Amino acid sequence: MEKLTVVKIGGKVINEEAALDAFLKKFALIKGKKILIHGGGNIASDWQRKMGVEPKMIQGRRITDKDTIEVVTMIYAGLNKKIVAKLQGLDNQAIGLSGADLNVIKSHKRMNLVIDYGYVGDIEGVNAGVINALMNLEATPVVCALTHDNSGQLLNTNADTIASAVATGMSESYDVDLVYCFEQPGVLSDFENKIVIPVIVKKDYDGLKNSGTISDGMIPKIDNAFAAIDAGVGQVKICHFDAIDTVHAAEYSGTVICQK
Amino acid sequence: MEKLTVVKIGGKVINEEAALDAFLKKFALIKGKKILIHGGGNIASDWQRKMGVEPKMIQGRRITDKDTIEVVTMIYAGLNKKIVAKLQGLDNQAIGLSGADLNVIKSHKRMNLVIDYGYVGDIEGVNAGVINALMNLEATPVVCALTHDNSGQLLNTNADTIASAVATGMSESYDVDLVYCFEQPGVLSDFENKIVIPVIVKKDYDGLKNSGTISDGMIPKIDNAFAAIDAGVGQVKICHFDAIDTVHAAEYSGTVICQK
Repeated sequence: MEKLTVVKIGGKVINEEAALDAFLKKFALIKGKKILIHGGGNIASDWQRKMGVEPKMIQGRRITDKDTIEVVTMIYAGLNKKIVAKLQGLDNQAIGLSGADLNVIKSHKRMNLVIDYGYVGDIEGVNAGVINALMNLEATPVVCALTHDNSGQLLNTNADTIASAVATGMSESYDVDLVYCFEQPGVLSDFENKIVIPVIVKKDYDGLKNSGTISDGMIPKIDNAFAAIDAGVGQVKICHFDAIDTVHAAEYSGTVICQK
Repeated sequence: MEKLTVVKIGGKVINEEAALDAFLKKFALIKGKKILIHGGGNIASDWQRKMGVEPKMIQGRRITDKDTIEVVTMIYAGLNKKIVAKLQGLDNQAIGLSGADLNVIKSHKRMNLVIDYGYVGDIEGVNAGVINALMNLEATPVVCALTHDNSGQLLNTNADTIASAVATGMSESYDVDLVYCFEQPGVLSDFENKIVIPVIVKKDYDGLKNSGTISDGMIPKIDNAFAAIDAGVGQVKICHFDAIDTVHAAEYSGTVICQK
């Protein structure tokens, strides 16, 4: 099957334009078909405050109320167009998408009887045929963390989950490598000394969680990774965004997550 | 040739969500292939001030400096995604585009030795083949007033001019109707009594300008209209956005601009 690289970026690489430019230069050189998924970094909260909308949290979770979704929409969509223009400048034909564009991601507003998260999307599925049609126009889809409820409302949607869903949706037609880029060199067994766990297989994952080696924010990321693998994605890589040029090379030094 | 309706909206219909919703409901019912082009209304200036960026003007022309293009990008792109989601909710498959997406509009930064307009785009051409490929996915392109310089920079670009350029670019393959929607019922001969000029042909245009019947802001709009007609667009209609459901009907009561 043809290779497809699905890359998710977020955090610092989004917050700092020089870091984003350096990342995109390397991303543009990845050969073959590829898809880029991006979050909004901390820009969302920063701009929200500038616009006089104080970010709302309940039990540590962001609540996306009416004002927040307006601001988040502008920030994610604006960033999306900036990335597309930058990729065009790097000779990569690109097209920016939210889940609403061509209905590429089907989702609904999260229903939760305990906490009302507001305008937050849970993904139902990905329209692989349409994404494929766009890639056949020689374009790299650039997907932001917005989906829609098919009734006219945009929804704030976790970018890690979008990446997992897109990789899964495309795995019927492609040999998909899903790459999560972030600020660390990989999943760490020793945070102080930045010691990377080179490979995590399914049977060892529970043990790593129980021992506390893998904790906090890494758990949902690795859960997303295994969800993708269970659904047909070949392997998932978790690495520093500076290492995006090594994901298909022998010198890759991040974490590889695979079935066995 | 197959019919294609290219509609441009701006001003009040953008500023007020209820007006936008009412417009989109009618737009969604237009049969056949169609393209929607939108400006940013007054939202851009309003948000700019909220974000602490005072709009800059020189000789009555807006200057798009570095801070302004950042804000304008967020506002236009965010509005673009909102319109796409609303159209999906109205059973219209839609895709949001800036000129950078799939390089659909080729442009460059305006060069002016007297006034530096900043990050403002002048259009070189439209990639009709790509727009056609998207329409063949049964999608209505929704184009915002952003283009790019092909070197990574987004550019603020007049939406009337984009509409004229897109209509022109598509006129080789389609029988194009270009429709400019705004707050008035058409081009007026009597502003007080809202008397519409039903038809303006080329040979009469200079006379209408010289007599002062057509003046100010209408002149660049009608210039754009005749530029499109000279380049192959069948006819241009100028009407109230509430009248969008009559553009192909006998009861159309706006202005028609045509060669003769």
